[in-house]
Amino acid sequence: MAPAVPLRFDAVAAMTGKSFGSDNHTGMHPAVLAALTAANAGDAVAYGDDELSQAVQAKLCAASGANHAYLVFNGTAANILGLSLMLRPFEGVICAEVSHVNVDECGAAESILGCKLLPVAAPDGKLTPDLVASRLTGIGDEHRVQPRVIQIAQVTELGTCYSLPELRALREFGRQHDLLIYLDGARIANAAAYLDCSLADIAANVDVLSFGGTKNGALAVEAVLVMSSGLGQGAQYHRKQLMQLASKMRFLAAQVDALLSGDLWLATARHANAMARRLADALDGVPGVRLAQPVQSNGVFAELDREHAARLRREWAFHVWSGAAGNRCVVRWMTAFDTSEADIDALAKSISDTGAASGSGVGLSGIRSGLR
Amino acid sequence: MAPAVPLRFDAVAAMTGKSFGSDNHTGMHPAVLAALTAANAGDAVAYGDDELSQAVQAKLCAASGANHAYLVFNGTAANILGLSLMLRPFEGVICAEVSHVNVDECGAAESILGCKLLPVAAPDGKLTPDLVASRLTGIGDEHRVQPRVIQIAQVTELGTCYSLPELRALREFGRQHDLLIYLDGARIANAAAYLDCSLADIAANVDVLSFGGTKNGALAVEAVLVMSSGLGQGAQYHRKQLMQLASKMRFLAAQVDALLSGDLWLATARHANAMARRLADALDGVPGVRLAQPVQSNGVFAELDREHAARLRREWAFHVWSGAAGNRCVVRWMTAFDTSEADIDALAKSISDTGAASGSGVGLSGIRSGLR
Amino acid sequence: MAPAVPLRFDAVAAMTGKSFGSDNHTGMHPAVLAALTAANAGDAVAYGDDELSQAVQAKLCAASGANHAYLVFNGTAANILGLSLMLRPFEGVICAEVSHVNVDECGAAESILGCKLLPVAAPDGKLTPDLVASRLTGIGDEHRVQPRVIQIAQVTELGTCYSLPELRALREFGRQHDLLIYLDGARIANAAAYLDCSLADIAANVDVLSFGGTKNGALAVEAVLVMSSGLGQGAQYHRKQLMQLASKMRFLAAQVDALLSGDLWLATARHANAMARRLADALDGVPGVRLAQPVQSNGVFAELDREHAARLRREWAFHVWSGAAGNRCVVRWMTAFDTSEADIDALAKSISDTGAASGSGVGLSGIRSGLR
Amino acid sequence: MAPAVPLRFDAVAAMTGKSFGSDNHTGMHPAVLAALTAANAGDAVAYGDDELSQAVQAKLCAASGANHAYLVFNGTAANILGLSLMLRPFEGVICAEVSHVNVDECGAAESILGCKLLPVAAPDGKLTPDLVASRLTGIGDEHRVQPRVIQIAQVTELGTCYSLPELRALREFGRQHDLLIYLDGARIANAAAYLDCSLADIAANVDVLSFGGTKNGALAVEAVLVMSSGLGQGAQYHRKQLMQLASKMRFLAAQVDALLSGDLWLATARHANAMARRLADALDGVPGVRLAQPVQSNGVFAELDREHAARLRREWAFHVWSGAAGNRCVVRWMTAFDTSEADIDALAKSISDTGAASGSGVGLSGIRSGLR
Repeated sequence: MAPAVPLRFDAVAAMTGKSFGSDNHTGMHPAVLAALTAANAGDAVAYGDDELSQAVQAKLCAASGANHAYLVFNGTAANILGLSLMLRPFEGVICAEVSHVNVDECGAAESILGCKLLPVAAPDGKLTPDLVASRLTGIGDEHRVQPRVIQIAQVTELGTCYSLPELRALREFGRQHDLLIYLDGARIANAAAYLDCSLADIAANVDVLSFGGTKNGALAVEAVLVMSSGLGQGAQYHRKQLMQLASKMRFLAAQVDALLSGDLWLATARHANAMARRLADALDGVPGVRLAQPVQSNGVFAELDREHAARLRREWAFHVWSGAAGNRCVVRWMTAFDTSEADIDALAKSISDTGAASGSGVGLSGIRSGLR
Repeated sequence: MAPAVPLRFDAVAAMTGKSFGSDNHTGMHPAVLAALTAANAGDAVAYGDDELSQAVQAKLCAASGANHAYLVFNGTAANILGLSLMLRPFEGVICAEVSHVNVDECGAAESILGCKLLPVAAPDGKLTPDLVASRLTGIGDEHRVQPRVIQIAQVTELGTCYSLPELRALREFGRQHDLLIYLDGARIANAAAYLDCSLADIAANVDVLSFGGTKNGALAVEAVLVMSSGLGQGAQYHRKQLMQLASKMRFLAAQVDALLSGDLWLATARHANAMARRLADALDGVPGVRLAQPVQSNGVFAELDREHAARLRREWAFHVWSGAAGNRCVVRWMTAFDTSEADIDALAKSISDTGAASGSGVGLSGIRSGLR
Repeated sequence: MAPAVPLRFDAVAAMTGKSFGSDNHTGMHPAVLAALTAANAGDAVAYGDDELSQAVQAKLCAASGANHAYLVFNGTAANILGLSLMLRPFEGVICAEVSHVNVDECGAAESILGCKLLPVAAPDGKLTPDLVASRLTGIGDEHRVQPRVIQIAQVTELGTCYSLPELRALREFGRQHDLLIYLDGARIANAAAYLDCSLADIAANVDVLSFGGTKNGALAVEAVLVMSSGLGQGAQYHRKQLMQLASKMRFLAAQVDALLSGDLWLATARHANAMARRLADALDGVPGVRLAQPVQSNGVFAELDREHAARLRREWAFHVWSGAAGNRCVVRWMTAFDTSEADIDALAKSISDTGAASGSGVGLSGIRSGLR
Repeated sequence: MAPAVPLRFDAVAAMTGKSFGSDNHTGMHPAVLAALTAANAGDAVAYGDDELSQAVQAKLCAASGANHAYLVFNGTAANILGLSLMLRPFEGVICAEVSHVNVDECGAAESILGCKLLPVAAPDGKLTPDLVASRLTGIGDEHRVQPRVIQIAQVTELGTCYSLPELRALREFGRQHDLLIYLDGARIANAAAYLDCSLADIAANVDVLSFGGTKNGALAVEAVLVMSSGLGQGAQYHRKQLMQLASKMRFLAAQVDALLSGDLWLATARHANAMARRLADALDGVPGVRLAQPVQSNGVFAELDREHAARLRREWAFHVWSGAAGNRCVVRWMTAFDTSEADIDALAKSISDTGAASGSGVGLSGIRSGLR
């Protein structure tokens, strides 16, 4: 196994052109900025009692089939608020080992909720009924945390998507075993775009989910959608206590409003996905480069030589995701709503060109840190 | 004591003109919106490693004398992050009974930090060495939470300010008793404006403080400033774990940048304070209305008849803060960066006019909720 | 107010005769030791699945009317486990300011449960519907912790008892306001003895209570009794997670069994109460000594001169409970199952004798620490 | 993988003879009962300020080289108290996947301490520097929990022991990587007996450890030993807050005193280990039965046919530990201070006899629950 030395993106000496480091390297979509500007007129009552906030919550419920919608500031908060509605202190969460909640939230689930995560190795980041079943031990045994929630991400940390039948299978398994389902939807737009389905199609299979805005052109907003009416009891108190109640809520609402209007959220995600597809297609046949995961969203995970990656990183911003056998590594290239075909083509050409260079002994300085 | 029935601002049937409900009923200051727009160019590395975020942190440290500055989303989060740097599990926080952390944060200090608050009744919202001393019991007794932090707000929840000598006296008392000082600066700009002093003048007397932006024209941002270098150890992990690490940090930084540029934060606060002063002056001599607290910031706390308040609330948005003896109550009128002299004059006239009306038996529907 | 410098019992230079410091200064009642000895035969399955543990749980339920009984190691644990069954993270506990959970458990409620306590000043340690009502503010306001539990102690920290009508009044008030009732019964035996009622008579008025053993002759055991079947859901997991599941449970059960057999628990409490009564009667007419609380259990709270207390403390072990006006203080003398009439008479004589001594300028070194 | 259905020991229809289910199925060693009886004379100040408690703490420190010793009620509490002294909220604990703290404490580490565990698969239950290194990722990355403590058990959950050189290697690795070491010593006596070393020999390699009493003849007591003076700061408050401060501390101290006197703790452990060795030797050559782990303490882990185990369990109390390939399973037989040679011989004969029986289609009803 490769040494997992953390590497921050800013270690890149020079960055030219578009960042492929993360979809959160982008700014706001113009429509989001316009919505903030429009919302900045006059006074509004605080904490979400204003008309815009109420309207946006209603729109989110209508689009997803949810009973309640709660806006929060970021993705970690959405995950923690969502899980807080589903768990008693002795109940645990079955999740993929690579899941954001397990790896990249600095232990918030454990520290803030006191919740034990029950991780499962999942090569493509996706849980299956069989994988979940492997953690269903000690049921009824007071010495053991009792599994209660299946936590999945759609899109996963590895850029893959659950198909709707796969979601239904998990749902059915959950029902059989009295397990709730939480879906981390930081990139749910990209999943809906990939599956060509509605938000409701995905949401119908879970109990609570997040709807991500930040990675899809917002400034900073996510929504927690509660499908089961019973789980929403007291959610407003949880949100406040979890430090996620915005006083000027209208500005969170405005961002979501911009994304929902005319299904902008889907259009931006479709575009980002298409750019990832274009990159994957361009890499087809480049010697020494192969896809490490199927491309089902706006992320391209590829395996290449470490020296190749190191050369590329002198010019391009992206993460080395993990080590791989021998002198290989896996990198991640993320696209976004504002990635252009020209950006893709330039990156693809550079990948191809730098791959042709002879091995120069340039060492790869590290592996991705916790950024997503 | 008057029945403390909660009343939400939105219960006001009709609102005409400027809201005096809270300084967070305002939108963004135009300079903040302009800064967000300017920051929306191109890509930027996430999580605060971008140039703007770094520059703004440096500016905050320069302005306050702090060693570290951490941007977060809101005031409750700033308080919790700040306190998290100062406490072990068995240590407690001495605070005023009316403090935001004790009353209006839905138990976040207890739930998130596991911290016991040790509240003290303080008629004007301000702690004194004597009041703090009254909670210094059980030192060294393992059955008792050990007092460790003096928590103060500047401006307080009651609109009052500590003078610099008062802050120094608390500081000195804290040093004698091995107590750290945390200052909730959600409205620190109004305090600096009132005291005609710098941020550093205030900050020099505490260990950790927050610097509020949201109530002073920002969209949603506060900074935690750590004066003592030792306390900042690991603060970046606390911030992430407390769900306060913004991925697109540049947009938090841009808001603060706009406020710091040309000392806009002080200018806006001076204006708001002046408007409160104008209102207080106008009320001088209005029959049946008297100030309940000295006016030392952008809040005017006044006592008047409940029926008088009820009549006013048909036209104006503001909070009834508490009951008072007999048929009296205390109301709060807040001004903001965008309150105009005309707004004040209209409100003052209305107060005077409605006071003249005969008692109509209109009941006051309730007392303030937790909004600030 | 007198300076509240903590003072540990072991600061007493010389102790002669019986301790009046606390009922936990006693050892085990002979019947408890005999029960432990008897239980030490052969193997037994661990964690409470043995016959004795099952039988004792059944006896506790039968005696109290509870649905479930859970043995734990000490009183703080009983309180925390009991409350853990009744609260969501944003719900608070109304309690007397002097309550053990608020003062003497080192912040366990806040730290372990994340729960906010809502204390009320209660001169005799007893809550009333009016006192509880004073904390029923902010209901439905997301910024505020929502009151959910009324926490009372029977006997209180000040040695007083709720009458059965007083308990019923609280119960009725709780029902009207959707508040549960938790009763800290560390000294419930003394209350039952004082009220001349059964355990069930008291328990019928609450939702969850503790049944104390340690102060009444046990080595270390308390029981949590759950009256409402719904609240017991998952209690076995809470107990384990709260580090209170004894592996050799039979030895906890044996202690309780000894106390329940032949109503020993009531007999010992009646004796201790009678000794306190005897002391109170003997003090009647002693110059300079007056009862500070009515004597309704095994504790005598009396006010006397600080110098008088200091002189007494050279010979006798007891706590100075608090300062009082002028040169006065309040002391606490506790009796126990093994306090004899001769012990009382000797103490009473000493109190009378030392009171006669002229003021010698001996300063009182301090006020009680958190021991109970 | 075998279905991991939990099975409680009490499902055994009939139990004849000695239990091999756990060393906590035993009662007290006669010397422990004698010590409790002796300690039951007269009054003693509570909470550990009595002479016996002080003396026992000193003895524990002398025997181990510790700076501080804290008595608590059980093993889970010892682990949680020990870890509480070593961690900040964002720091994690590297442990073996099978460790008690990870599997059998109902999530207390996560719930009570808010701590993230970083488990590593370890076939024999023992961590190595290489296994620890595999979890040292994301150092310095604010998105990641920062590894801080290596948690090991001596004896491990699988009955194996670290050699002293293995402990020293971990210690050295810890020093190089700024990692503290916590040792769960619930069965440390058996390890010291197996290694033929002193308590201090083991303790010298760690920062905090527990010294188990309950499994070695006590009623209910464990000690937390703090080797590094700095880590003990405030431990008395942690203990109280964690609900582990016994009022009648003398009775916890008396148990430990009995075990330390004349090195009884080592003699009992040597005996238990010898009984396990005797069983292992007797099984040598029994067809269909093979050791699953080396026998290095008082536990024998053996693999045999599921039907064989099922037949045995009709007569004998022991746990099926896990499933194994095909129709095989792993069982655990525990010996204790009071296991006799005759007990061993009877069990061994029964194992041999029932193994000879033909497969009868009797299904094994389950796998061990969380008991240890």
